[in-house]
Amino acid sequence: MDYQSIFQAAIDRLHDEGRYRVFIDILRNKGSYPNARCFAGHNGPKPITVWCSNDYLGMGQHPAVVEAMERALHDVGAGSGGTRNIGGNTHYHVDLEAELADLHGKEAALLFTSGYVSNEAALSTLGKLLPGCVIFSDELNHASMIAGIKSSGCEKKIFRHNDLAHLEELLEAEDPATPKLIAFESVYSMDGDIAPIAAICDLADRYGALTYLDEVHAVGMYGARGGGISERDEVADRVTIIEGTLGKAFGVMGGYIAADKNIVDCIRSYAPGFIFTTSLSPVLVAGALASVRHLKASAEEREGQQASAALLKRKFADAGLPVMESTTHIVPLAVGCPVKAKRISDILLAEYGFYVQPINYPTVPRGTERLRFTPGPTHTADMQDELTGALVEIWDRLEMRQAA
Amino acid sequence: MDYQSIFQAAIDRLHDEGRYRVFIDILRNKGSYPNARCFAGHNGPKPITVWCSNDYLGMGQHPAVVEAMERALHDVGAGSGGTRNIGGNTHYHVDLEAELADLHGKEAALLFTSGYVSNEAALSTLGKLLPGCVIFSDELNHASMIAGIKSSGCEKKIFRHNDLAHLEELLEAEDPATPKLIAFESVYSMDGDIAPIAAICDLADRYGALTYLDEVHAVGMYGARGGGISERDEVADRVTIIEGTLGKAFGVMGGYIAADKNIVDCIRSYAPGFIFTTSLSPVLVAGALASVRHLKASAEEREGQQASAALLKRKFADAGLPVMESTTHIVPLAVGCPVKAKRISDILLAEYGFYVQPINYPTVPRGTERLRFTPGPTHTADMQDELTGALVEIWDRLEMRQAA
Repeated sequence: MDYQSIFQAAIDRLHDEGRYRVFIDILRNKGSYPNARCFAGHNGPKPITVWCSNDYLGMGQHPAVVEAMERALHDVGAGSGGTRNIGGNTHYHVDLEAELADLHGKEAALLFTSGYVSNEAALSTLGKLLPGCVIFSDELNHASMIAGIKSSGCEKKIFRHNDLAHLEELLEAEDPATPKLIAFESVYSMDGDIAPIAAICDLADRYGALTYLDEVHAVGMYGARGGGISERDEVADRVTIIEGTLGKAFGVMGGYIAADKNIVDCIRSYAPGFIFTTSLSPVLVAGALASVRHLKASAEEREGQQASAALLKRKFADAGLPVMESTTHIVPLAVGCPVKAKRISDILLAEYGFYVQPINYPTVPRGTERLRFTPGPTHTADMQDELTGALVEIWDRLEMRQAA
Repeated sequence: MDYQSIFQAAIDRLHDEGRYRVFIDILRNKGSYPNARCFAGHNGPKPITVWCSNDYLGMGQHPAVVEAMERALHDVGAGSGGTRNIGGNTHYHVDLEAELADLHGKEAALLFTSGYVSNEAALSTLGKLLPGCVIFSDELNHASMIAGIKSSGCEKKIFRHNDLAHLEELLEAEDPATPKLIAFESVYSMDGDIAPIAAICDLADRYGALTYLDEVHAVGMYGARGGGISERDEVADRVTIIEGTLGKAFGVMGGYIAADKNIVDCIRSYAPGFIFTTSLSPVLVAGALASVRHLKASAEEREGQQASAALLKRKFADAGLPVMESTTHIVPLAVGCPVKAKRISDILLAEYGFYVQPINYPTVPRGTERLRFTPGPTHTADMQDELTGALVEIWDRLEMRQAA
């Protein structure tokens, strides 16, 4: 067997399509984020400004988070040393799960090592526990939800993105006695649009379906206490399972679900991706606990982010740049070609010290390649002016003005 | 649909079989591990000694690890803020991957958020890239390998545990032109036995198969630099892919693979479980880097662990306790009943302050339930005497002497 030529061909395909990924090597500057330094291709680190982080509110550098992590590190050490069941269940885990259950108004919550794992483990396990379950999945659902649904072995029905009529049509076609689960997100991270949660819950009620809502791009950022869009829209109690992350607005790492006690207990007890893995480091859990508690009480970061995003959208639009429609904190700029998206990103980094990653297939569909900006409370108006000026110059240089 | 009764019935099944899991709520005492304190069911924390941690060498409290984490925390903050491709590729990640590649004598390495995810992502992606691949899997392989193989969609052939004749029989039955992958572990964590790696590589050579070796219970602990059993046996260069963890002997959290450049690049580029997840916190990566570097140079912890395990096995045997055969640092004690295993564990914790978790199905096959001790360099001879005395008393109390 010539294995090498198979692997080589798989890599060549990526180069041919212009979507071979080169990771940008950076270190962020705690205390002055979005400033950071970049290593690759330079002599020594070069100062840059980060425009594409999912540490949306800068909580990764918040003193309360850093102090909590330092305290935990010195109290209990680096890692948990085991699975949740075998030595790796620390008091921090117990406290954080209680805090997250409270955040979403649910009876219980369960931590996972990542948001990806929480979706994969929860959806696959739910599907396996419900005999003959059919899962209704939004066509733009995240890869981790798709992986979980696939691994559940359930029949999957894909509904058009946020299309209630299509979802109802699919629900109606099933036997009323069939267990059903509707899986969707609140904020879709690459377009920045929002699901009609209440209307989806109406359909779930009408057709006897459970609901599974991914709020990873909303928790910490929406709702009076950071409970996400489901809190903002006052529908958290109608959603069966809410899934979130500790690695984006909360600034740390890890994922979780919140739901009623029995559902959480089932996933805790049956999901291999939860059972057979070393639990989150207590250092991370302590940091996440501080972050969740802070954002429950403080709206300053959320308001700063919304203002920053609104300002950048306006600046882009005023400059004639093809900013895509978004009702959230996410600011995508349409490019439509993987090679051009990478070229713009390369120029921004090399010539201007602005870091924004090109978003190519498979993260978004082919032909919809884009740059995705995530301005936060620490991105100043001056930074936004410089960024906008740089983009206008590059758009002119690459003769892309008509795209606007 | 009465969903609640389905979930309730799933939980009732666990209670009925005596394998409903109650997580023991603890905090370890950094600097004096294996000492810890236990919360659940007590008024305030009660001092305990941990006997079941996979922080095998106590590296979670090593000053070099703690200092590296503290430094990173203050330099760059809590989380990475993104996937490896979008803002989450820090210089620590780059350095640690180079260090791990060197540890195993491979061209490249790739980090994952956990050992579970590394197995799931790597095996499923390899299987998908090799058309018509058949995967040969040891019957005792870890749940994460089973998940990866299942998700690959490949045909799976299970060989009897460490049985070379059976493996060869299965390999021989396949078409020579069929891509083949042999997936196995070096140290099997629940029995403590070791795979015949060289002989498996011989078979791989003879039948044109790739080899995938899980070394999570060996890295840091075996080999002159902690490269695992494949280093000790001088066969690392013959194994195609070596998988390891940062969450056990290295004391932190995370997983990785090491292999040749093209294979790592393929998995980096095609595995959803790698691509679509927030990267490891730079704080963890910095700690793991310090830990791997320390254990490359220092054999003291490894030697202390081996001495501690040998001593405990002898004490158990001398006391007539049913210690299971193990050629490694793992010391399993046979019980054979989930209810009894839990009862012994409960008495040890409540009356003696010794924490060892009962190991029940699905972690081990039904009927082979056990207690699994992991003595390390910081478990003293006095601690071992006290533990042995407690077990003898409980064995007598529960009239289990004949089991020895």
